[in-house]
Formats: sequence, C-alpha cells, structure tokens
Amino acid sequence: MGIVIRGGTVVTAEQTQRADVYCEDGLIKAVGADLDVPAGTETVEAGGCFVMPGGIDPHTHMELPFMGTVTTEDFFSGTAAGFAGGTTTIIDFVIPNPKQSLMEAYHTWRGWAEKAAGDYSFHVAVTWWDETVRADMGTLVADHGVNSFKHFMAYKNAIMADDEVLVNSFQRCLELGAIPTVHAENGELVFQLQKKLLAQGMTGPEAHPLSRPPEVEGEAANRAIQVAKVFGVPVYIVHVSAKEALEAITRGQDGGQRVFGEVLAGHLLIDDSVYRNPDWDYAAGHVMSPPFRSKEHQDALWRGLQAGHLHTTATDHCCFCAEQKAMGRNDFTKIPNGTAGIEDRMTALWTHGVNTGRLTMNEFVAITSANAAKIFNLYPRKGSVSVGADADLVVWDPAATKTISAKTQMQKVGLNIFEGMTVTGTPAYTLSQGRIVHALGESRAVRGAGRYVNRPAFPTVYEAVKKRNALNMPTPVAR
Amino acid sequence: MGIVIRGGTVVTAEQTQRADVYCEDGLIKAVGADLDVPAGTETVEAGGCFVMPGGIDPHTHMELPFMGTVTTEDFFSGTAAGFAGGTTTIIDFVIPNPKQSLMEAYHTWRGWAEKAAGDYSFHVAVTWWDETVRADMGTLVADHGVNSFKHFMAYKNAIMADDEVLVNSFQRCLELGAIPTVHAENGELVFQLQKKLLAQGMTGPEAHPLSRPPEVEGEAANRAIQVAKVFGVPVYIVHVSAKEALEAITRGQDGGQRVFGEVLAGHLLIDDSVYRNPDWDYAAGHVMSPPFRSKEHQDALWRGLQAGHLHTTATDHCCFCAEQKAMGRNDFTKIPNGTAGIEDRMTALWTHGVNTGRLTMNEFVAITSANAAKIFNLYPRKGSVSVGADADLVVWDPAATKTISAKTQMQKVGLNIFEGMTVTGTPAYTLSQGRIVHALGESRAVRGAGRYVNRPAFPTVYEAVKKRNALNMPTPVAR
Amino acid sequence: MGIVIRGGTVVTAEQTQRADVYCEDGLIKAVGADLDVPAGTETVEAGGCFVMPGGIDPHTHMELPFMGTVTTEDFFSGTAAGFAGGTTTIIDFVIPNPKQSLMEAYHTWRGWAEKAAGDYSFHVAVTWWDETVRADMGTLVADHGVNSFKHFMAYKNAIMADDEVLVNSFQRCLELGAIPTVHAENGELVFQLQKKLLAQGMTGPEAHPLSRPPEVEGEAANRAIQVAKVFGVPVYIVHVSAKEALEAITRGQDGGQRVFGEVLAGHLLIDDSVYRNPDWDYAAGHVMSPPFRSKEHQDALWRGLQAGHLHTTATDHCCFCAEQKAMGRNDFTKIPNGTAGIEDRMTALWTHGVNTGRLTMNEFVAITSANAAKIFNLYPRKGSVSVGADADLVVWDPAATKTISAKTQMQKVGLNIFEGMTVTGTPAYTLSQGRIVHALGESRAVRGAGRYVNRPAFPTVYEAVKKRNALNMPTPVAR
Amino acid sequence: MGIVIRGGTVVTAEQTQRADVYCEDGLIKAVGADLDVPAGTETVEAGGCFVMPGGIDPHTHMELPFMGTVTTEDFFSGTAAGFAGGTTTIIDFVIPNPKQSLMEAYHTWRGWAEKAAGDYSFHVAVTWWDETVRADMGTLVADHGVNSFKHFMAYKNAIMADDEVLVNSFQRCLELGAIPTVHAENGELVFQLQKKLLAQGMTGPEAHPLSRPPEVEGEAANRAIQVAKVFGVPVYIVHVSAKEALEAITRGQDGGQRVFGEVLAGHLLIDDSVYRNPDWDYAAGHVMSPPFRSKEHQDALWRGLQAGHLHTTATDHCCFCAEQKAMGRNDFTKIPNGTAGIEDRMTALWTHGVNTGRLTMNEFVAITSANAAKIFNLYPRKGSVSVGADADLVVWDPAATKTISAKTQMQKVGLNIFEGMTVTGTPAYTLSQGRIVHALGESRAVRGAGRYVNRPAFPTVYEAVKKRNALNMPTPVAR
Ligand SMILES: [Zn+2]
Ligand SMILES: [Zn+2]
Ligand SMILES: [Zn+2]
Ligand SMILES: [Zn+2]
Ligand SMILES: [Zn+2]
Ligand SMILES: [Zn+2]
Ligand SMILES: [Zn+2]
Ligand SMILES: [Zn+2]
Repeated sequence: MGIVIRGGTVVTAEQTQRADVYCEDGLIKAVGADLDVPAGTETVEAGGCFVMPGGIDPHTHMELPFMGTVTTEDFFSGTAAGFAGGTTTIIDFVIPNPKQSLMEAYHTWRGWAEKAAGDYSFHVAVTWWDETVRADMGTLVADHGVNSFKHFMAYKNAIMADDEVLVNSFQRCLELGAIPTVHAENGELVFQLQKKLLAQGMTGPEAHPLSRPPEVEGEAANRAIQVAKVFGVPVYIVHVSAKEALEAITRGQDGGQRVFGEVLAGHLLIDDSVYRNPDWDYAAGHVMSPPFRSKEHQDALWRGLQAGHLHTTATDHCCFCAEQKAMGRNDFTKIPNGTAGIEDRMTALWTHGVNTGRLTMNEFVAITSANAAKIFNLYPRKGSVSVGADADLVVWDPAATKTISAKTQMQKVGLNIFEGMTVTGTPAYTLSQGRIVHALGESRAVRGAGRYVNRPAFPTVYEAVKKRNALNMPTPVAR
Repeated sequence: MGIVIRGGTVVTAEQTQRADVYCEDGLIKAVGADLDVPAGTETVEAGGCFVMPGGIDPHTHMELPFMGTVTTEDFFSGTAAGFAGGTTTIIDFVIPNPKQSLMEAYHTWRGWAEKAAGDYSFHVAVTWWDETVRADMGTLVADHGVNSFKHFMAYKNAIMADDEVLVNSFQRCLELGAIPTVHAENGELVFQLQKKLLAQGMTGPEAHPLSRPPEVEGEAANRAIQVAKVFGVPVYIVHVSAKEALEAITRGQDGGQRVFGEVLAGHLLIDDSVYRNPDWDYAAGHVMSPPFRSKEHQDALWRGLQAGHLHTTATDHCCFCAEQKAMGRNDFTKIPNGTAGIEDRMTALWTHGVNTGRLTMNEFVAITSANAAKIFNLYPRKGSVSVGADADLVVWDPAATKTISAKTQMQKVGLNIFEGMTVTGTPAYTLSQGRIVHALGESRAVRGAGRYVNRPAFPTVYEAVKKRNALNMPTPVAR
Repeated sequence: MGIVIRGGTVVTAEQTQRADVYCEDGLIKAVGADLDVPAGTETVEAGGCFVMPGGIDPHTHMELPFMGTVTTEDFFSGTAAGFAGGTTTIIDFVIPNPKQSLMEAYHTWRGWAEKAAGDYSFHVAVTWWDETVRADMGTLVADHGVNSFKHFMAYKNAIMADDEVLVNSFQRCLELGAIPTVHAENGELVFQLQKKLLAQGMTGPEAHPLSRPPEVEGEAANRAIQVAKVFGVPVYIVHVSAKEALEAITRGQDGGQRVFGEVLAGHLLIDDSVYRNPDWDYAAGHVMSPPFRSKEHQDALWRGLQAGHLHTTATDHCCFCAEQKAMGRNDFTKIPNGTAGIEDRMTALWTHGVNTGRLTMNEFVAITSANAAKIFNLYPRKGSVSVGADADLVVWDPAATKTISAKTQMQKVGLNIFEGMTVTGTPAYTLSQGRIVHALGESRAVRGAGRYVNRPAFPTVYEAVKKRNALNMPTPVAR
Repeated sequence: MGIVIRGGTVVTAEQTQRADVYCEDGLIKAVGADLDVPAGTETVEAGGCFVMPGGIDPHTHMELPFMGTVTTEDFFSGTAAGFAGGTTTIIDFVIPNPKQSLMEAYHTWRGWAEKAAGDYSFHVAVTWWDETVRADMGTLVADHGVNSFKHFMAYKNAIMADDEVLVNSFQRCLELGAIPTVHAENGELVFQLQKKLLAQGMTGPEAHPLSRPPEVEGEAANRAIQVAKVFGVPVYIVHVSAKEALEAITRGQDGGQRVFGEVLAGHLLIDDSVYRNPDWDYAAGHVMSPPFRSKEHQDALWRGLQAGHLHTTATDHCCFCAEQKAMGRNDFTKIPNGTAGIEDRMTALWTHGVNTGRLTMNEFVAITSANAAKIFNLYPRKGSVSVGADADLVVWDPAATKTISAKTQMQKVGLNIFEGMTVTGTPAYTLSQGRIVHALGESRAVRGAGRYVNRPAFPTVYEAVKKRNALNMPTPVAR
C-alpha cells in the first residue's frame, strides 16, 4: 500500500514547486501536481508545508564504546531521535583501535547497528598503518559499500593518525576512489597544552577550549589539505569550528582543489561562554572537540556555509550522561568528549538559517541532505525528491514553533546544548522507506527497520580528479 | 508528433543517468530508461552521447547599432550560430541612449529580435536616471518579463552610469525583485589612460589593454559590490576578466553577500599577447572590453569557476568585421569593441574544462546553462532536463573532434578568436522547442521561430534577501 | 644657554640606549653617556624615564571655520594641549572652498597659525580642479614647503573630490613629488544613506554610523588606492577606521604599491556603542567621520598597526562644543563632525599599545613620530633623537598614572572621548625647540613660539617610485 | 691609526646623508660632515659612493661536514668571498647529529670557525630532544652568546624535528629569550614524494623540485607559525621560497604575531627551469632545498620583501663541487643540496631591487644588514653606521658594473647560479673591524682575523612578547 503526500510544496536543492509525492515499496514513485493514486493509498495532508528530502547526518557516534562503557544513545534510540528532527539517514563511524583489524571492527559495528530504526552507513577510521590496513581498505570498498575513511589528527597516544598514516591512507583512498575525511586538530599541540594547563592549575572544563585553540584546528586542517593537494586527492574536513580551518578550506578550494567542509549545528549556534559557566556539570556537558568557539568564529562559519565553502551540516551526536562526564571532575582531560544534537539540527538551522535570510530553502536542503548525498555517492537515492529515490521525506511545517529542552526531547542524554532555544519550523511528519516514522510529535520508529546503505566508490568528483592527475604526471628530461 | 532521444546519458547540474528523453509540443514529456513512446515518434540515436540542457548565453549583442551601422550578426544568424554550438537561449541587451526612454528602446529591440531562430530575453540597460526611468523599470518588470538591469561603469561621456545612477537603480531593482548587472570598469580611469597613452604616441591596439588594466576592472567591481552590500541588493558582474574583480566578488560572497559572476569563454582561453601581434587587423580583431589578460588572470578565472565564485559563462558575442575595426586604425580608442564566440563557447569549455579535469560534466551543465537559468529565474523551464521543461537540448558527442576556424564557422565575422583550437566534444544534435535545429554539422534553424522569454521578478535569492534586509532595519534610540 | 636631559633612556624607532641629550639653539647637540656640558646648562633629571622624539600629529584641524563659526580650539590652545600630551609638531589642513584659490586659502591659514605654540605644517586640500589649481599646487610645492595634498571623497555637494579631481590631482602630485592623502568615504553613498535614514525616521546620532558603514570607507579607500596604482603614485589614507579600508591598504602594499595608512587613537580605543547612549549630547559629542566602529574593527586596526600596514597615528583633533553639536538636534546630518584627542593620543597608545605588549617602545616612537616624519619628509629633523635634529623631545615617565577627564584637560572642549580611562605612562617634560614647554603637569607654552615647517618635495619613497614608473613606460608595436 | 671615509653619502636603514665616517680601534668614532681627523689617518675616497653598514648574511654553511667530506668553502675562504660582495658578518649553523650533545657540536664548529676572516656567530640546530638538550640550550644562551635555535622540519630519518621536538624547543626558546628558526618543509611529504617519483622512473634533478612542491613548504611554514602562536613565541622562517610560505607568514603577522621571514637572493632571481636543463651537471648544480621556483613565486617574494613581510636576505651559502653533486647521478635524492652566493647577494639585490625601484636604498640596507642585526640582537653594533658601532662598512659604487661569472669569482665552487648576470652597483671597498679587507676587486682578507660575536638573549621583540603572554595567562573559574 502506498502513501501520498498531498498539497505541499516540494523543496529540493534545485527548486521549489507545488507537487504531490506518491511513495510505494519504500520508493518515490511519482512527483507532480494532483497525482492520481491507487485506492487505499494513505494520505498525508501537507497543506502549508514543505516536503523535503529527509535529512542526512553524516557525522554521528551511536553506541560508541568508551572507557569500558558506551555512549548513552544506541543505534535505535539515536536514529529514532533523528526521525523526530527530520533526519532519516546517518553515517556513523567504525573506529578500530590501533593494531585492530579494520574488518573486525567493521563487523562489530555492523552488528551493533542492526537495531537502527533508520538507514545508516559507516565511515571507517584509519588509526594505524600497515599492509593489512591497506588491504582491508580495499576489501571494504570493493565488498562492503564503504567509500570514505576517517583520520583523527588529534588524540595522541590513542587513535591519532600522524603524517605517515595520513600520507599512506590518502594515497590509498585515491586508488580506491574513496573520500578521506579528517578530524583536524594537531594532537601534539593538544597534548602539550593539556599538560601545560594542568601544570598551571587549570583543571576545570574552562581549560578544555584553551587546550584546543583555533590555531590547533587551523593548522591540522591546512596540513591535511596540503597533503591531499600534493597527491591530488579530494578531502573532507569534519566538524569545522574555527575560522582558521575554514580559511584553510577556502584557500584549497580557491586554489582549484576538491575540498569539502562539514559544520555542526552546535558550532554554528553555541559559543564558548558555556565553559565558564559556574555549574561544573553544565560546563562539562558542553565538552566536545573541537570546542565551541567565540561568536567571531560562528559568524565566519555561517558565512562559509552561505558562500559554499562548507557543504554539509552534522551533529557529531555523541552522548554522555552527567555521571560519565564526571570522570573528569578533577582533570578536564578526562571528561568524555561529546554532545548530542541529531533531534535538533534541522529545526535549529531552519530557524537561524532560513528564517534569518542567511539561506534559501533550497540551500537548506543542500546543506542538510543533498550535498552529503552527493559527496558520499548516495545521490539521488538519498537527498532528492525524485522518482526512484528512497522515500525518505520530511513534511516541514514552517509555522510550527516550540522551545527546545532536554525535558521534552527523545535524545537519551540529560543536557541539550540548545536548551531554551525557540524554533519556528519543525517536522510535522517524517517518512523513512515510505513509512511514517514520526508524526506530529509522536514516534513510530521501528527497532531494526533501518538498512545498511552501500556507498559505491568513485563519486562524481573523481571523474575530474582522475583526469587532472593524469595531466599532471611528471616527465623525465632526456639526457 | 514527438521526438525521443534514445540511449544517451542525461547529464544535468545535479546528476548523470542513463535515460531516454521524450519531447512533444516543445516540452520534455518524459525522462527515463527505455521509454515507451507513441508510434510515429522521431528518434535521435544518442548512444555514446550525453544529453544536456541546451546552453544559455546570458550575454550577447546581436544586431547592436553602433556608429551608424550595426554588428554583423543579427538575431537570426546569431541564434543559428548558437544552435551550432549547443546554445539554445540567449539573453541580449536593450541599451537606451542617455535620455532615451527605456520603453522605447525596449520595443525597438523586441522588433529587431523577431527574426531570431532560438529563444531570447533581454537585460535592459540603465544609462541615465530620472523619474521616468524609475517608472519604466517598474513597467518592464511588471508587464514585460524583464528581471535584470544592466549598468555600464565605463564609457564616460556616453552610456556610463555614475555612482548616482548606480545607487538609484540598485535600490529600484531591490524594490522590483530584479537583478542589477554591471559592466565593471572605471570609466574615468579609462578616459584618462586613453588620453595619456595617445599623448605618449601609443595609438595602436597594443594600447587598448594598457588603457584598461586589471585595476580599472577590480576597482569598479568592488565599488558595485559595495554599493549592493550597503543596500542589501543582489548583484551580478558580467564578463569578469581580471583576478582583482574575481577577488572583489569572492570577498563579497565570503562576507555573506549575494554576488554572481559571469566569465567569457574568451577570457578563460585567450591571452593578451594578441594585442602585440604585428598584424594590425589581427590585433584590432581582438579588441574588446575588458581586454584579454595575461595567463595569470586566466588561471585565476578557471579557479574562480571551479570554486563556485563565478557562476555563468557567456560570450559577449558582438561581431564587427575588419572594415568596421579599421575605423580605429590611427586611434585605438576608435576601434569598435567586440568579439564573437557563441558558436564555440560550449565546445571550448568542454575541451579545456571537462577534458582537463577542471570541471565535472555536471559542473559544465551548471556553468553553461543551469546557473544562468536559476539566477535569471528561468529554471527549471530552461537549464534542466525535467518533465515540463522546454525541450531545449543538446546531444553531446564527447568523442567528436574538430578544429575551430573562421573558415568553417557559421558566425558572421571574419576572425575567430579560437582559430586553430582543436576541440574534442561537440554537439551532435541541438534541439530547440523540441525540434532539431542543428544536426551533425548542418543547420536547420528557422528564421523567426525563436520566442521572447518572460523572466518573472523575485528569483529565489530574493527569498533570503528580503528576510535579511528586514532583520537589518535600523531602530531609533528613545531619548 | 643649553639644556641637558640626564640619566634617561633614549628610545627611538631604531633602538633603546642609556644616554644624556644636550640641546642648544633649539637643536640637539649631543647624545651620549655622561655628557660634558657647559656651565650654566639647565638640567632635566630623567632617571627612570624614557627620552623620545616629540610626537607628531599629522592630522589636526585647529581653528577650522565651519558654518559661520570656528572650532573651539585655536592654534595656540591646540598646540599647547599637544605639549601636555607629548606632541610637539602638528600637520594641519588648508581647506579651500570649491572655486577658491589654493594660494589664497593657504595664506589665510598661515595667518591663523601664527599664534601656535608648537611647530606646524599644512596639507592643502584639493577640492576642485582647473588649471589654476594645477598651477597653485606647483607653487605650493616649489615655494611654500607643501609636499602633501588632501582629497575628501566624502561631503557631496561641498568639498568632495570626484574621480575626475582625484585622477588629475594624483597625477599632478606625481609630477611634483608630493604625497596625495585621502579621506576615504564614498560621498554618494553617504548622501543617499542619510536621505534614506531620515526618511525612515532615524534622525538621532545613532543614525550617524549607519550612514557611513564600513563598506562606504572600504570602497573609497580601495578606489583611491587603485587610482594611485594605475598612475604609479604613492598614496596616504587618513583616519583608517574600518577593516575593509585596512584590507584595501594591505592589498595595495602586498601588491608592491606604496600605500601609507594613518589611524586615530580614537578609532583604536572607542567603539560604536557611544552612538546609542541615551544622552543625546554624549552621543552627538562622538559624532565624527568616519564614525567609531565595533570592536571587531578596533582589533583589526591594532593588528594592522602591529603588522606595519598602518604607519602613523593621529587624532583628527577638531573640537566642537555642545552648543555647536546641538545644531543637529533634529537631524543627525547637521551635527558638526569632530572630536578632540591631541592631549591624550600618546598616553592612550602607550597604555593600550606598549603596556599590553602589542607594540615595543621603538614601534611606539615609530607610529607616534618617526614614521610621520619620514613619510612627509621631515626626518631626521623631526622624529629622531640625533645630533642636528630639532630639540623636540618628550621625557616619558612610564610609572606615572592618571585618569583622563574633560574636567582636568587643557583641550578646549567639553567632552573627552577617553573620559575615565586610567593611563600609565605620561609625559613628565615636553621640550619644543630646546625649551621646556610642559613640565610635570604645568604648561609653559608660549603663544606664537611655533614655527611653520617647510617640507621638501620628493620624500625617499619617490626614489623608488620614479625608477619603477620609468621601467613601466609602454612601447608601441612596430607595424 | 684610524681610517676615514671621505665624501660619501651615508645610507642606513633610516636615512641618507652626506657625511664622512671616521673609524679607530675597530669602531666607528665619528659620523659627520667634513670631519677633523688625526694626522696620519688613512683616507678612503668615497666621492660618488654610498657608505653603508657591511652586509650580514644570516644563513651560511661554511665547512659543513657531509657524507664523510665537507663543503668546498671553509670559514676563511667563505668570509673572504663575503668581503668581496660587501658582507662582513655571517651567522652560520651548528648542526648536531641526533643524540649528539649540543655543547660538543658547538665547540666543534667554534674550532672550525677560528680561521674566519670576518666576524661570525652561530645558530644551533635542535635535531632531537631530551633533558640534556634542554639544559644545553640554557648553557648556550647563558654562557655562549647564542640566541637562536634552528629546526629542520625536513630530512626525515636524519635531522628532522617532528612536532614533539618543535613544541618542546619553542617553549624552551621562550623561557630563554631566544628566537626559534625553522627550515620549513614537511619531511614526510618529501620522503613519500621522493619514493613515488623514483618509482615513476623520475631519477634526474628535474625530479628534485617535484619532490618538494610549494605545498610542502607552505604546510610546514604554517605549522611552525601556528605552534609559535599557540605558545606566544616569536619565530623566524629561513629561506622562504614559495608564496604559500609567504602567505603563512603574512597571515601570522596580520594576526598580531611576531613572525620573521628570510629570503635568499637565489630564490628571488633564479627560476625552476634550471632543473630541466639538458646538462645534468648544470641541473644538479642548482639542487638545493627548497628548490628554485616558478616566476610566480619570485614575484610574490619580491612583493613580500617590499611589503615588509620578509625581513632579511641571505644565501644559504653551501658549496658542493661537481664531483660531490655527481653522487646523485642515478638518484636525485642523493645529490648534495646546496648552492653558493655570499659573494653576489648584495650586488644582485641592488641591481634587481634598488635599480628597478622595488626598494629604496634605505630598505636595501634594512634587508641586507640592519634587520638581521635587530632580529638577532646585534644592533646597533652591527647593521648601523653610528658612533660606537663596529667599523664594518661597505663603500658602494652605484655606477660600477660587472658580469657575474664562476670564472672570476672568489667563491670556491665551479658553478655560479647568477652566471652571466650583469650587475650595476658593486662594492668599491669593504671594511671589517675598521680595516680594509677588500679594495677595488682585490682581497685583503686575513685568515683568523674574524671574531666570534656573542648575541645576547631577549632581543627587543621579547619586550612586547613577554607582556603579551602575561596578559594572556588563563584563569580558573571558581566553582
Ligand atoms: Zn571529531
Ligand atoms: Zn566525531
Ligand atoms: Zn561589457
Ligand atoms: Zn557586453
Ligand atoms: Zn576626514
Ligand atoms: Zn580630518
Ligand atoms: Zn634549509
Ligand atoms: Zn641552510
């Protein structure tokens, strides 16, 4: 039995048009005015609403193992919270320990994710290097639908990828047609700043941003981008929070390079005053890396998003409860890093992006859904409202308003970084695979209904990259 | 009777897919694999080819009156030459004399254009200012499908718009939901440099670029963009040729402003050595404004196009024959400014853009067609391959090769600025309004078949602009 | 009879050294450790103090005629207030009315200035253009020691220099070896914004900064610099207040151009919140052009000063009392523009520049004295502590502290923009022409003791400029 | 017995004046017009000449041990060649092997240097890290007149300093009041590019620049500067050759940081076409790191020098003969890196800097002498023409002309990178310690006459740096 969304205005990254959308078998079957639909078709009334592709959050950490425990949000609860916010697809991370087999880690995460209510995929982290890693990367791309690999430039003595790992892995990505992604913070600097701050008696969460100043991020972003440039590899920088990193991205793009940037809703909207809040739990609850920054950086990020230097928005959804955060009560370096947001990303961005005239609605779809789909080669299956696409849709009510609060959220975490923010424009209905999974504030998420989404290698950008690199092959001088 | 394009790969700004395209009544009726079509449908075999939206050239001057004569290319020959190159829509310019009524000029140009073979529209120039100009702008937008107005910052003592005209007209555009466009060269500087060069005995065409150095363009572009910023108006800079102008555009965009940039195929591919050619006719044949620049500027323009700072490509197609050019034999300031290009734009950009890996095919469609359609509010009627769109299509053979020459061109002018360039990737078939208008090198253009295309006011960008300006309204201090 | 300054540390733009300074006949006669001096020499004990060249304020408006009255500070009171703050030389402005002879205006100002207590010189404004202006510029340079000409890009319908004036005057400056200086604000934009704001009911001083936003200044600065570049002329931008203008200067310098920038102490230290003060007199008292800006601009100006993009600091000292300001009570465009500062410039910059580690002491001397002397060709007569130089010195007590207030100032104006600022580091003694003119808070200024200072043409920068321009001469193609 | 330089024009970084210079006991004793000098004083006639401070080359490698041999130029021949070119002081490098004691290496170099004809000092390289290194740095500063430490970011598996070494050493420099200097190339990238190029069959010297593209340098420069910023340390980048590195420096400076840049005469004047010369010896003779670059980079370097972003000029004088270069005949990575230049630096820069109008003469003195003296705390002992300064002087004949050639040079190396360059403006006389050491083309250098020059810690810049860092100390939140 199908479902039809009637009377809405379909908004995609390209255009805005009055149209009905008919879905069946999990797919969009028709888009057009006054569609004829089979008898028995369920109807969603979308008058006054916008019908948009479901959001894609390309950066989440559900059920992440950490210090003998796991984040409080699992793949089911997390994807269900995503539905509440209009997000229907996540790309999470497989993070092997150094020396751990990538394949083994991958299968572990696949197991955990089976409970997901919404569709999901995985970036796989490269945290070390040897020939088995190189081989496993090949297997993951060829046989397991992975087309992106993550590199942490921070977290020295743990999962940090040094220049040797970066250079090897980036070259391997180029061979495989995969996108290297980078958490850009200079791990050595963080390590030494932490030491210095603790030595200065700075043990509280207010030291966290001081241990990771913008330069630490800008340096690493620039380094990753230069490495990519030297080998002709496209590169994607996750959670850009500092104008210095944005500038490094912009320089790369303006120099003809293929560089993609992701920004978190939190970094766009929260500033670093939270770390000097007298309430330790509140301050610690905002500890994440990179940290929230001053307003100057927020302004820069918004402009970067408007100008197209940043392509995607995410959350880095990674939930730790107050008890977990309290592990770092006497030492800020031991506070688990992470904040939530998957439930609020789209409404917060609509309110502060579309309602303020920073973004058009089409740009909103691009940065919440279509661009991620294109970069990670899911388009038009995801990120579009077109015949044949997955029926992942959100019916958006631009007039609906609410105040965000941890008290009323689905997210499994005690603190909401957007607490008290009044938003205008929220999901009325969310559809995943052609089924209503969230309706007028009520969850209809089904445990295990989510599917693993294969992402083919060689996204469009590679078409250009390969030609460019071929033209740039060196030639010897005959002597 | 319909026509179906079979077996091709449809390439749009968003995606690439194997699909047939069925057209009828001048419109695209279906896009999909293995389409069922009515009996009697004409078939175009597109195996191995790409099917793309017909090109839009947003900057041409057909049949431009000049010094008692007119450019050699009229609306029929010019649009037919466009078909040969895959371009199916032009936006030309109505240029009133100072003190001439805008409405009168508009109707004059409409009359001339009736012979066009392809669809066309008009930017209208604002070359002076009073209340009738203000009123006529309103009439043109309300009743005549004009949504863009052109401003020449050069040509002192002729059609130059000084700051007073700019400021008035830009504010009027904002009220009307129209896009101001700008020819950015500081007319006072050009005037004084011409005088100085002539006084130095520099009378030949090699003085032309010296009278319009990059600073002259950069200054004007920056000025127009700042004027636009101060009043919150979107702005479009035509024929960006200098990196200084590109940088002004980039600064505007990176500062959150809505600025669009156009670049000519010629400025991307021809350098300023042409002006020092010992053959006067050759040098004079390349005289246009802004002039061709050094390779450093070409590199910058390509990077600006790749990075998305420049949105559209055009030709400024404006043909003068050798006799006309010879009017300036003893004084370079009297050489009529203009060069051709509508027939070669797409193939030259494909060869040097797509084949070199600078652009993906999707980006090629964006910069030759879709972006112009979006900015000037023709999308998705033009610039897309979608059901309901005008059936303006080009079937592109990526393997076909030829050498560009004035000897073999349709363009009515003796000199081709791309003379001798070997291109790979050319149109096999061009369709306008669902009819084949150019097939395998043979023109089937029909005089007068082209239609005037109305462009509605308030393109998408205005959705954001209006909200932004409303938020920025000043408030008095209560005292 | 001579005077010796004993036991101090001499600080110049180049170095810091323990040395005595012996002065006689208005000149420095010796600099060295433990100087032998003639019997009867007066001694100034400078233990614990720094001995620096007296400050040069290259931008003041003493006794400026305005709307039938004059600014409250005349050349005597103004230069005496300068002594109190360590400033011993001013460069004021001759401002002819449009159509008024430059020579006539020059002589008028020379007459007014005879009462000055300290040395002075004049920039002469070019407010219109014809052949007599060209000729008078030549006379002023050849016979009257003028080597700089001022251009107001603002003040439409009054003293505004449009592009035609700019281009003619800049070229004339180049012939004469003079420095063109520029008040950079786009007069047309100011004019139209004033009209628009008044139409919106914005009549109070809070509208003043809105009528002159940073873009207005950035545009004009960029334009002046591009004009200068095209003709190979050095250029000096007065009172840079906006980061956009600073960026235009920086671009010029980084492109190989000779561009100088001046910044006011006020723009470095006061922000635009003053205009929204509920007290009209207070807000109006801060009305000057360009207006005070947000903190973001202040930060940028400090960085520009540190990085060497800005060379000089000034005050634009231009005093209007509350009654004069009140002329604009119902219309902010009628509030006389101007604020004071000559008494506080050096101590405010020491406190916020040297004491904060933004500037070394040597850099402090450069930006308060030596750089102005070099640019305007007074060095080493002014701006140095060297044998043969004018004995204009300040003995600076880095430990002395005070709180700035209109109540305790010498400046003849009711409001001090630095009111309440506690400064550390103030002049203990000021010497002009080898005489103590201010000692331990007490003025010893002598009416009429100041001298007009001739500034020769062709300052050092012209040595390079002339060679560069000669190399860049165009050559015709032989045909 | 003294010596007087008569009738010349003294040019310093600050000013130009007609003056005689009298020297005695190795020091300047008087500067002034028509000096009275003791009977028996030797006279140098300097009519028509400029008298300037002797050049300082802050980057040389005399007698550098390498692969069991040493560079062909020793401290005597090298400093004598410097005299021929007007350079009277060098700062060379002590380069300990990893794990070698800094003190041991320092004393070894001191021994080698005893034969020097001119004054010299040493930067000491930090090539590894442990507590003994930290301690030795303290000893070198406290007891041995060292105030700068060098870090090689290139040369993986040899002397490369990784981030851990950088961060530790930079912090140590801050404690000691020393300046960290950096050879900025990313060693990992060089290593991998060398491997890749060899694997592609690129074994000749044309592969050398490809293994060290501009990004490799820009990345490292940016990284070093960010590390310095995070800890508030001033930093000096040696041999800046790429615009990317210059831009990193400029960003640092414009952000308020204390960053110094050095550029080699070779990088300003030689382009990378040398590496594709069909003569292997010629190409290999130009192998140095960073390599010579394309003209675009040269232009950027000149502009950086003019704009004050680069402060010093050097040579990296490091001579290998053709036999030594031939060690890399089958593998470009084995060609010893280094080129000569100390004899030609000043005349080449005068010809292409002063004679072209890029630099004034005062700026020439700044970038060849005074700035190095200020940065490395030798001013005014070196770098000035002032009473009490070392009598290291060059009498410069601006009219003298010659053609540079290896055949006629003093430098002990077979190839001159400036071969065939005609220069105008050369030293007539060079004085060191008040003695003529080179006169009208004839060397009078004395083996062992040079002195080791102590450089005190805490150069002027530290005055500001310390205050700034104190203000930036973090404060905990009371909870
Ligand atoms: Zn991360
Ligand atoms: Zn993450
Ligand atoms: Zn034009
Ligand atoms: Zn045109
Ligand atoms: Zn002014
Ligand atoms: Zn003024
Ligand atoms: Zn080096
Ligand atoms: Zn070296």
